Amino acid sequence: MSKTITLSIDAMGGDNAPDMVVEGMALALKDIPDLRFMLFGRSEKLIPLLEKFPEVAEACELRHADDVVSSSEKPGIALRSGRQSSMRLAINAVGSGEADGIVSAGNTGALMAMAKFVLKTLPGIDRPAIASLLPTIKGECVMLDMGANIQCDAENLVQFAVMGEVFARNVLHIPKPSIGILNVGTEVLKGNDSVKQAAVFLTETHLPIDFYGFVEGDDIGQGTVDVIVTDGFTGNIALKTIEGTARLFAGALRQELTRSWIGKIGALIAKQAINSFRTRFDPRRYNGAMFLGLGGICVKSHGGTDALGFCTAVKLTHELISDELNEGIKEDYARFISEHHDFSGSVD
Amino acid sequence: MSKTITLSIDAMGGDNAPDMVVEGMALALKDIPDLRFMLFGRSEKLIPLLEKFPEVAEACELRHADDVVSSSEKPGIALRSGRQSSMRLAINAVGSGEADGIVSAGNTGALMAMAKFVLKTLPGIDRPAIASLLPTIKGECVMLDMGANIQCDAENLVQFAVMGEVFARNVLHIPKPSIGILNVGTEVLKGNDSVKQAAVFLTETHLPIDFYGFVEGDDIGQGTVDVIVTDGFTGNIALKTIEGTARLFAGALRQELTRSWIGKIGALIAKQAINSFRTRFDPRRYNGAMFLGLGGICVKSHGGTDALGFCTAVKLTHELISDELNEGIKEDYARFISEHHDFSGSVD
Repeated sequence: MSKTITLSIDAMGGDNAPDMVVEGMALALKDIPDLRFMLFGRSEKLIPLLEKFPEVAEACELRHADDVVSSSEKPGIALRSGRQSSMRLAINAVGSGEADGIVSAGNTGALMAMAKFVLKTLPGIDRPAIASLLPTIKGECVMLDMGANIQCDAENLVQFAVMGEVFARNVLHIPKPSIGILNVGTEVLKGNDSVKQAAVFLTETHLPIDFYGFVEGDDIGQGTVDVIVTDGFTGNIALKTIEGTARLFAGALRQELTRSWIGKIGALIAKQAINSFRTRFDPRRYNGAMFLGLGGICVKSHGGTDALGFCTAVKLTHELISDELNEGIKEDYARFISEHHDFSGSVD
Repeated sequence: MSKTITLSIDAMGGDNAPDMVVEGMALALKDIPDLRFMLFGRSEKLIPLLEKFPEVAEACELRHADDVVSSSEKPGIALRSGRQSSMRLAINAVGSGEADGIVSAGNTGALMAMAKFVLKTLPGIDRPAIASLLPTIKGECVMLDMGANIQCDAENLVQFAVMGEVFARNVLHIPKPSIGILNVGTEVLKGNDSVKQAAVFLTETHLPIDFYGFVEGDDIGQGTVDVIVTDGFTGNIALKTIEGTARLFAGALRQELTRSWIGKIGALIAKQAINSFRTRFDPRRYNGAMFLGLGGICVKSHGGTDALGFCTAVKLTHELISDELNEGIKEDYARFISEHHDFSGSVD
């Protein structure tokens, strides 16, 4: 019998919180009936909601939190003044071991600052990274960092590569995931110093890592590699560029199909195909940015998502815990450090 | 009567050169019958091609060039050893004033190195930038730099902003184009030092520039601003991410529509709408990366394009010349420098 997993939930983060949060929990319970929750937020808002969703009430322990971290709050301020916020108390529950992981749709910067403060980083990791799953023509890939670290040196990128590799192996269940570093060309001489030095290290290392080399922006969607490593500035812009291009395409396709009655009829007949196309790229299916490298599992849901999107983030968090992601990172990292005493020296 | 424009053409650059080059010239002549060319390349290959396209032969002067710069040649080597190449001789024709601009589908790095060496940069411009037109839901926008400058300081970004503004006004004919700097968030405190300092300068300047502020990756496709300014590393990755996402979507839509006979029938009925959708995002319609900031007009066609794509690049080059882009940049830059003596100091 597998151990019951308890997730700590920040009920107050996100544009449509707490309604979409509790509804999302209800959806997740349908697929994972033995999931348990600790729900942090304003009880006067949450009690009526839990009455509407008795199955959630049944599976959850409500903990009142007075404060809410606003979406515009600066991380440093939130860290100092948000000690009684739903976000912070939800993270504390993971720190104390009461919960196995936390999900929040609140302020990303504040969540990272608080999670880093409470949960600390794993041994050997200097900076946690934000990882996201992305659709490819072959299936999906994982990309990191998506914005936690604006400037990264080669050592940070190598750490992201190791964490991404463990993630792809343990969570995506790819036996030997390939790793690529995002760059402006595939030749070894291309790019800035960080990517060049990280590539040299990953090429020469004896670690059991399948390093593909450099990949370009168009390799993301082609599924050229399983793990794409980049700094947080580039990663964030690439991710949002994908989202924007997806929206542009969907909008333009709709415009063209509804411009004439014959287009509308064709679309009606091909409805099922168009719907599967839509479902395949539904951003809610990819919701949940994972904070990798922390001493606890922490997932950030998109702030603008709905119940279905929040449910995806909850199920992803459950998966990270049951697949023992952090144990994998810890083990691999210990091996990595013991075998490569000269690591920092060789890439700086 | 407008002055006859002569374009210098590198016949040997690109995967399908010289066939697609000459065919592309023929297509361009249909729209611009008074266009004249100087064609550089191996005459033994070009003479039979010109026999096939007598209208091109009529409009063009053939100049034999023995050497071809290979697509894998390093820029520095190409600059030193490619003095008799079709690319270099084509650029020389602009430097000597025989031609008004040059188009090549060859090696980007070599083209930039040679063009910078022969044509020099415009007064006040430290580094030329590569600019591209991109489709948006509202129409199109221009983005720069697309890869000429891997690392950029605030001053470079400000120079790109001024060049992009002149381009959007003179070539896209937008009376007061809005300028945005690509960043990981829209708040002033976000991003790296270069983007933050450039934004401060563009906010405080008295230059007649409509500075919008920071934009994010998803703003590109939404057409939030007319000009998007970024460093060459981020710009190149964003551009290729857009291309990759477009290919992913087109491929997935095809997969879904051809999976069932009812999907196929629907697609057949909506064929015209699907075709206009395809045409709207046809990369050949956006072919032609413009090197801005040089003392001559230089356009790089995609190496993998066909005759239609090459024709777009030729027509774009013609437009940059007839719209007097470089005269605009020179004038604006002279004004910019005379009004802002403290420019470098204020952003460094």
